[in-house]
Amino acid sequence: MSKPLIFVTNDDGIAAPGMRALIDVAKEFGEVIVVAPDKAQSGMGHAITINNTLRLNEIKIDKDIREWSCTGTPVDCVKLAVNMIMHRKPDLLLSGINHGPNSSISVIYSGTMSAAVEGAIEGIPSIGFSLYDYSVNADFTLAKSVVKTMIFNVLNNGLPDGVCLNVNIPMIGVDEFKGIKICRQAKAIWDEEFDERKDPSGNTYYWMAGSLRNQDNGDDTDESALSQKYASVVPVQFDLTAHQVINDLKKWKYEVKL
Amino acid sequence: MSKPLIFVTNDDGIAAPGMRALIDVAKEFGEVIVVAPDKAQSGMGHAITINNTLRLNEIKIDKDIREWSCTGTPVDCVKLAVNMIMHRKPDLLLSGINHGPNSSISVIYSGTMSAAVEGAIEGIPSIGFSLYDYSVNADFTLAKSVVKTMIFNVLNNGLPDGVCLNVNIPMIGVDEFKGIKICRQAKAIWDEEFDERKDPSGNTYYWMAGSLRNQDNGDDTDESALSQKYASVVPVQFDLTAHQVINDLKKWKYEVKL
Repeated sequence: MSKPLIFVTNDDGIAAPGMRALIDVAKEFGEVIVVAPDKAQSGMGHAITINNTLRLNEIKIDKDIREWSCTGTPVDCVKLAVNMIMHRKPDLLLSGINHGPNSSISVIYSGTMSAAVEGAIEGIPSIGFSLYDYSVNADFTLAKSVVKTMIFNVLNNGLPDGVCLNVNIPMIGVDEFKGIKICRQAKAIWDEEFDERKDPSGNTYYWMAGSLRNQDNGDDTDESALSQKYASVVPVQFDLTAHQVINDLKKWKYEVKL
Repeated sequence: MSKPLIFVTNDDGIAAPGMRALIDVAKEFGEVIVVAPDKAQSGMGHAITINNTLRLNEIKIDKDIREWSCTGTPVDCVKLAVNMIMHRKPDLLLSGINHGPNSSISVIYSGTMSAAVEGAIEGIPSIGFSLYDYSVNADFTLAKSVVKTMIFNVLNNGLPDGVCLNVNIPMIGVDEFKGIKICRQAKAIWDEEFDERKDPSGNTYYWMAGSLRNQDNGDDTDESALSQKYASVVPVQFDLTAHQVINDLKKWKYEVKL
């Protein structure tokens, strides 16, 4: 039996320590190929590059594996890898480990998770990993152990059609860790604060900043699990249809005056 | 009773004819405020600008309304408008009318729809409109009639919490139009073709192109409705949890070796 083919990407850029930690674990399971952004692409969501060109540059970082840096977004990396780099469809797509959480509504802004969602669209079992620590020097010891458990599970069990996994690891010591919990996405919102500044010419510009506000008291959410020192696993789908309201919407009047 | 406050944005840029058509209809219903990208932002998905600055420039296009062009993405426009421009939460958010369809999986790549989803996250009744015609000179006559019906409905009925609408209008003459149909998102995938070229220095670059492949034979999908000359309306949610697989995932073994 041939070794699993594992594709790795991220949104913090190809040199990020979180991705190096992910590659370290992935190498134990199979042949690893990397295509990742050449710069930070946090907050890029499911953006693709259609109004500009894309470039791939093969680079050597880890002596054992082939890696390309890409000028595009995380989703561009997946599309380019599948179409231009990989000799066959990978058995597994891993994205991350992100420096910072992608729990609750952050899943929708996250380049890390959008790469995993794109993998699911393309029929590849896909997992996004994020550590609840924005620091470039974050400790990935616990995260690597969680990654190992999740890779083992997905290689053995596969994933349901149309679903990828959003795995978040709390920022705690190994000895405090409670385990892995399957969750739903908490209902939360980012409260933005725009920092208004003047450029040297006196013109106004803004920096977006903000903080996550959890609006969800459920004990089955990712936010709840993380606060209780569990790693959270949320199954994520790309069918965005709100099926539960279709029958109500059918009751409206839709006469169109032409 | 005060007039409804209606926020309008898009992803084709503030001067796009599709947005002008949308503004024409919106003005009949209330006070319109526009914040839209200063350039085309197609395919930007739910991207936000956190690694760069943002600027707003007030400009005059339509004598009756206040408009700002923004250097950021469609989602940036919504966040800036809500936080820095609008004196209160708008009664309605309209995005579009996009030059080109955003049916089926395109919802996830679409800046037009991501603006509407961001509106829903912020608790604003939100609708994205797209016409099945990429031409800058597209005929928006039929689309404007559909917009009118949908605005009337949403202002009168509101929208369920956590849900916005994805409205697509077929590229047909007014006399062929069959009506409006409530649908689910078709399962489809973009088959990419990367056009490989050489720059003047002999280095390789790529243009992303592709075509949508519908993998869904259901007669309740948006693709089916559009092919039968209906306008499609899909309720879209930002809870991405695949609730239906949570119990199955709980059966796996999650022992973490530390």
